[in-house]
Amino acid sequence: MHSTRRPLQKLKGSFPKSLLKPNLPYLRNNKSYSTALSTPQNAQTIFSGIQPTGVPHIGNYLGALQNWVSLQNSAAESTKLLYSIVDLHAITVPQDPETLRMCKRTSLASLIAVGLDPERSILFYQSAVSAHSELMWILSCTASMGYLSRMTQWKSKLSLDENTSPLDEKSKSKLKLGLFSYPVLQAADILVHRATHVPVGDDQSQHLEFARECVTNFNHAYGPNLVEPNTILSPAKRIMSLQSPSQKMSKSAPDPNSRILITDTPTKIKKTIMNAITDSQNSVTYDPERLGVFNLLNLWSYCDPGQRSAQQLAATIEGQELKVLKARVMESVTEKLEGVRSRYEKVLEEEEGRYLDFVAREGARKARESAEETMVLVREAVGF
Amino acid sequence: MHSTRRPLQKLKGSFPKSLLKPNLPYLRNNKSYSTALSTPQNAQTIFSGIQPTGVPHIGNYLGALQNWVSLQNSAAESTKLLYSIVDLHAITVPQDPETLRMCKRTSLASLIAVGLDPERSILFYQSAVSAHSELMWILSCTASMGYLSRMTQWKSKLSLDENTSPLDEKSKSKLKLGLFSYPVLQAADILVHRATHVPVGDDQSQHLEFARECVTNFNHAYGPNLVEPNTILSPAKRIMSLQSPSQKMSKSAPDPNSRILITDTPTKIKKTIMNAITDSQNSVTYDPERLGVFNLLNLWSYCDPGQRSAQQLAATIEGQELKVLKARVMESVTEKLEGVRSRYEKVLEEEEGRYLDFVAREGARKARESAEETMVLVREAVGF
Repeated sequence: MHSTRRPLQKLKGSFPKSLLKPNLPYLRNNKSYSTALSTPQNAQTIFSGIQPTGVPHIGNYLGALQNWVSLQNSAAESTKLLYSIVDLHAITVPQDPETLRMCKRTSLASLIAVGLDPERSILFYQSAVSAHSELMWILSCTASMGYLSRMTQWKSKLSLDENTSPLDEKSKSKLKLGLFSYPVLQAADILVHRATHVPVGDDQSQHLEFARECVTNFNHAYGPNLVEPNTILSPAKRIMSLQSPSQKMSKSAPDPNSRILITDTPTKIKKTIMNAITDSQNSVTYDPERLGVFNLLNLWSYCDPGQRSAQQLAATIEGQELKVLKARVMESVTEKLEGVRSRYEKVLEEEEGRYLDFVAREGARKARESAEETMVLVREAVGF
Repeated sequence: MHSTRRPLQKLKGSFPKSLLKPNLPYLRNNKSYSTALSTPQNAQTIFSGIQPTGVPHIGNYLGALQNWVSLQNSAAESTKLLYSIVDLHAITVPQDPETLRMCKRTSLASLIAVGLDPERSILFYQSAVSAHSELMWILSCTASMGYLSRMTQWKSKLSLDENTSPLDEKSKSKLKLGLFSYPVLQAADILVHRATHVPVGDDQSQHLEFARECVTNFNHAYGPNLVEPNTILSPAKRIMSLQSPSQKMSKSAPDPNSRILITDTPTKIKKTIMNAITDSQNSVTYDPERLGVFNLLNLWSYCDPGQRSAQQLAATIEGQELKVLKARVMESVTEKLEGVRSRYEKVLEEEEGRYLDFVAREGARKARESAEETMVLVREAVGF
């Protein structure tokens, strides 16, 4: 552990032991592991980012944030950790400036509330570190338009078909350069910190692949200056909407009862789960086709301190009424999120908000330092 | 005049009096002139950029640099002047890093040698001011892919037909994102300094139009924060190659005898002009179809202290042998460039190169300050 580390809290959550090993064996991109390990002093750097959507819901927490915390708590002292609130990415779709500003703040407070320690991990707003945009431009000079046009994220954000080209009539009227070129900024986010390991969900592995492509292109043109990042694939933990269980739980769904926020009170959690949509069969079975019930079982499993599977848990109350299941889910979720709300409020209010300003400022300073180490090499290599 | 102004030299060049007026009436974009003038204190800001191709040839000088100098020397004291060596743009096509580094330096020394005064004008390397890339990203989030794909520069740089789409098979294999999105960086160059006036050649007016489009898009989304730049259209002064007069004079042409550099010695200038390709008719006539002779007449005219036209000058030696014409061209070019070479060498050698480092550092500092004023507004408007 880092000597100056003073965690605000310890999470009760439980994770697969394997994920906690400091040598991070869960690598998808084994080919380039040796590259990653050949960085100076074999130091590892972990980078990941989250959109500034404000207080995360429990799906974000179970799928990403809880892994960030366990990586932090299990990392070797020499490992550098950076977690960014990616506000430059947020503006690839229209945003209300006041809402964005507020959500950045509540996102940062949430990261601390779930257990990220600003003295151990570098927590920062992406827009505070101009090197992200600088490297983005440099990478874009060796990034192929053809590759980018085959990527899928811009298509899904515009609700377009997977076969759509960026210059089809349908795309042209809507597509902005920022949304199209967003994977290059994402690559820069990772590469500017020489990240060796990037924890991501399955939906982001295409972007990691592209980031490695950017390394190949840059290093081919300018010599071996950038480091290939490895994917740490987070175990898929899909939490569905509690109101329409065929859709992913989402901050942007209009019905607030469709989600649990990590700062919800036990009363609110209880109410939301009690109102969760299931189906007309009022008894517990383990059946992936019973979407609502299956989702509740998964939620229970992901929050279960004993790490039992959804199937194992279902067996313990097989055939009982659904209110029994809901009560168990409620208990485990409440226990999982215990303390998050009070830490969140404390962080936001501490010194009338000046503590959070301080965290943001210090995070920006450290992230700028980290990025500058790479930019010195990059500028030299390019001829600037 | 600025009180601290200490010009290294005074140019002997002569320009249309109209261009020298501090109120810059030669505006193509009259519609937005009122916008430009409604900036704080009606202050004007002039911005322009040049690629770091090293010592400019006389075509660059007559077409652009000499106007930059006269704008500097005639501008009101309150006018801010910024001239940038746009190295971020240079890497949209492959560059050798060592050559690029050297050419940046000789480009900067050349700007000073032709009469730009680093104490009056802000001379800086674009890559030293990260706000250019930062604003580029922000603008790209409201810049339309459709508009960009219709622009022509990337097509001509890849020698592609004007009707080519960026995702045609022919383009896909070659086109990089940087080259495609380059007009957005160019817009950011201008807008980040709230430039009210941009001196450009005719070939760049499409890009100025796009910069105004970026202002419209940004201000529409985030409120009136960016300033529409006006075009100061430089009088077209096309100088053709002295070896193949159907092509523009160019630094990249393989034959060094095809061009005159602004640092050429009188002996070298004499030799190059004496060897200039004309045609088989050994007598002077004013005939635009006699490409070589016409080019020499134009060169003479652009360098003539009396500002006589090519036709007027031709009349003074009508029917005489071409060597008479060549002698006159030689004299006028030599006189025009008098002192440039010695100032260039002095600037490069001054304090063993430390003077040029100082100029670059100070220019970067001032340009960062200038850009930061805009970025504060932009970040606030966007919600960062």
